[in-house]
Amino acid sequence: MATVKLLSDDELSPEARAIFDDIRKTRQSEFVNNFWRALAHDPKTLGRTWESLKQVMAPGVLEPKVKEMLYVAVSIAHGCTYCIHSHTAGARAKGMTDQEYAEMVAIVGMAAETNRLVTALGVPVDDVFLIDSARGGGQDL
Amino acid sequence: MATVKLLSDDELSPEARAIFDDIRKTRQSEFVNNFWRALAHDPKTLGRTWESLKQVMAPGVLEPKVKEMLYVAVSIAHGCTYCIHSHTAGARAKGMTDQEYAEMVAIVGMAAETNRLVTALGVPVDDVFLIDSARGGGQDL
Amino acid sequence: MATVKLLSDDELSPEARAIFDDIRKTRQSEFVNNFWRALAHDPKTLGRTWESLKQVMAPGVLEPKVKEMLYVAVSIAHGCTYCIHSHTAGARAKGMTDQEYAEMVAIVGMAAETNRLVTALGVPVDDVFLIDSARGGGQDL
Amino acid sequence: MATVKLLSDDELSPEARAIFDDIRKTRQSEFVNNFWRALAHDPKTLGRTWESLKQVMAPGVLEPKVKEMLYVAVSIAHGCTYCIHSHTAGARAKGMTDQEYAEMVAIVGMAAETNRLVTALGVPVDDVFLIDSARGGGQDL
Amino acid sequence: MATVKLLSDDELSPEARAIFDDIRKTRQSEFVNNFWRALAHDPKTLGRTWESLKQVMAPGVLEPKVKEMLYVAVSIAHGCTYCIHSHTAGARAKGMTDQEYAEMVAIVGMAAETNRLVTALGVPVDDVFLIDSARGGGQDL
Amino acid sequence: MATVKLLSDDELSPEARAIFDDIRKTRQSEFVNNFWRALAHDPKTLGRTWESLKQVMAPGVLEPKVKEMLYVAVSIAHGCTYCIHSHTAGARAKGMTDQEYAEMVAIVGMAAETNRLVTALGVPVDDVFLIDSARGGGQDL
Repeated sequence: MATVKLLSDDELSPEARAIFDDIRKTRQSEFVNNFWRALAHDPKTLGRTWESLKQVMAPGVLEPKVKEMLYVAVSIAHGCTYCIHSHTAGARAKGMTDQEYAEMVAIVGMAAETNRLVTALGVPVDDVFLIDSARGGGQDL
Repeated sequence: MATVKLLSDDELSPEARAIFDDIRKTRQSEFVNNFWRALAHDPKTLGRTWESLKQVMAPGVLEPKVKEMLYVAVSIAHGCTYCIHSHTAGARAKGMTDQEYAEMVAIVGMAAETNRLVTALGVPVDDVFLIDSARGGGQDL
Repeated sequence: MATVKLLSDDELSPEARAIFDDIRKTRQSEFVNNFWRALAHDPKTLGRTWESLKQVMAPGVLEPKVKEMLYVAVSIAHGCTYCIHSHTAGARAKGMTDQEYAEMVAIVGMAAETNRLVTALGVPVDDVFLIDSARGGGQDL
Repeated sequence: MATVKLLSDDELSPEARAIFDDIRKTRQSEFVNNFWRALAHDPKTLGRTWESLKQVMAPGVLEPKVKEMLYVAVSIAHGCTYCIHSHTAGARAKGMTDQEYAEMVAIVGMAAETNRLVTALGVPVDDVFLIDSARGGGQDL
Repeated sequence: MATVKLLSDDELSPEARAIFDDIRKTRQSEFVNNFWRALAHDPKTLGRTWESLKQVMAPGVLEPKVKEMLYVAVSIAHGCTYCIHSHTAGARAKGMTDQEYAEMVAIVGMAAETNRLVTALGVPVDDVFLIDSARGGGQDL
Repeated sequence: MATVKLLSDDELSPEARAIFDDIRKTRQSEFVNNFWRALAHDPKTLGRTWESLKQVMAPGVLEPKVKEMLYVAVSIAHGCTYCIHSHTAGARAKGMTDQEYAEMVAIVGMAAETNRLVTALGVPVDDVFLIDSARGGGQDL
């Protein structure tokens, strides 16, 4: 039930094909998932999104599986079924255990509950949670 | 701008006071933040929420700072200013570095973008992301 | 911090003034809250919204305070601070007790938690929750 | 399309089985819906969620059907299809009439509309909607 | 997977039938889509919603296709699959080209990303973006 | 109430300074708003976001003011006060009239209402709104 046709490999424009080549090379896999096949109608957004994702999800200071779990957590809060499935699979592929998954899901649920309790009650932010602009960034809270 | 008065220590019911005592003992700090002072009007919800939070945020398989970061990510997606401030401070207190914070924020933004692109295009979930019920849980994706 | 100026009574167009007159007459109060003063730049939307609200919140089969509580619950989930404050005050004015308020807030929080747990896990709807189109409306579930 | 396998009765751990027993006993029904079968992978979250739900939805000052309707209203705003179906069925089972349902749906829609109008215009909260901390709780607004 | 039965033409009440007649006459088409068939159980909400939609989507200063695109953008952010499909089709019917669609989708994604970055960082509104109440409306920013 | 300190010009890293230079040059204005000053702690995300925004908001087939209005519409649905203010000001600067603004706000509110009505009722997508994969893209609906 898509609003655009998913493009098969032989329907790609040359620009989209070049990006698919990079996706395959980067992931070292022939498989290109539906998200990119839907975006492929617009090579500009396809390319920008792929480059941004590569930058954001590249090896950094957070573990790859933690990065995927943060991605899943946001996708749950936004109600994106596709993203939940693809990034939960991604987190598992990067080593997330069943126990880690269970802890993550519990945190997402708990955060949702306290988020709404706080919003209901209109709780003002405690001074201690504010950064002290004189100290520069709040890193030492 | 709250919908209930924040209760000071000497306005607490005995039930609420007992929970505040446990908050202070568990956190080894005299400070009790505004969220609990707003919830204190309803000792039942105060107690259940505190017990749930203790269970969910207790030491487990995920690092404490990662747990706080997942909490922040969800709070951003739900737009809860108080929760963003309190759990960002919490993550920093548990060791989140500026670089880890920067990576988390970038992931939250990126997830928001692809969540909405996917939703706009109505992308169907790839079969490969579905769990195989015969295999029991999808752990090996 | 509004995106439009709040209009005072003497800045109203004749169309907006007529609607303010009806608000005052219907509510039997001189006070007109900021929402209407912001909407007053656009008499067409002001008029349609006021007429719709009168219809939706008119005496019906649900108690007036229950109607306001449903309004608050949705406003919390949408994160609308103004609406939370105005309709919480409205529910109190229509008889919502502190205990009813506490129960409502607890339900909103709990629903938020299970909403996100369900979404995380992608739980399929049980057949028993589906309406049987042959029976016509699902009323007897 | 779940991210975990739904557990059948004979796949439950002893801890999960004990909670299913309590669900069946409390509800006086053999039927256990999919939500609990998905949560059953994590007996700790299963148990905590069930205990919380029992507390929150227990007989109180609000009518059982009103509690379910508040649950539905929040679930609509969060876009949780499963929760909308299960709690709409629950509200009907507890006596919600078609007319009450129609009024609730109309309120949810109207709240969504004014929530977004208010947010668009950035309407500041009227002083009269604020609690007077000197009076303690805002009950008499 | 609806919570109410979709009503066919011969199941309509006289009030609902009159509104369906106006929908058909206004749109100059026999086709009445499922939204109205679900709403038809409640002729009051059916009638109010149809009248409101006619007013809001009537020819005005914005192009009809732009109006539909704004409708789609909001529907994506709210995660309403039905609305995304119906209004994307509507925008196409009113002349939205593939390139315009691609630009709109890219903007929705980008807005989602910066919305969440801003919320994460708690960025305060610059004075220059505030309306100057002395000048009356901020039109000249 | 930010979670990071807003950086002044003389606190910028060389990488961030280069991006601020491009912002100033592109916009032909010395003014750099708070969003960029908050992002400046992370030059990588600052740079990527600025480049993405330049691409997405560059002159295209949609009018610049329409692009800003789509941005505002999404920001309202996500409840981002900062973004609502900055892009409403942006749309006005690009020519959005008061009447166009009023029409946009009315559409956002109406979409929110029908989004939630549709979600409440679980309305299934009509076949006519689905793209015909044989025809390739649904452009001719």
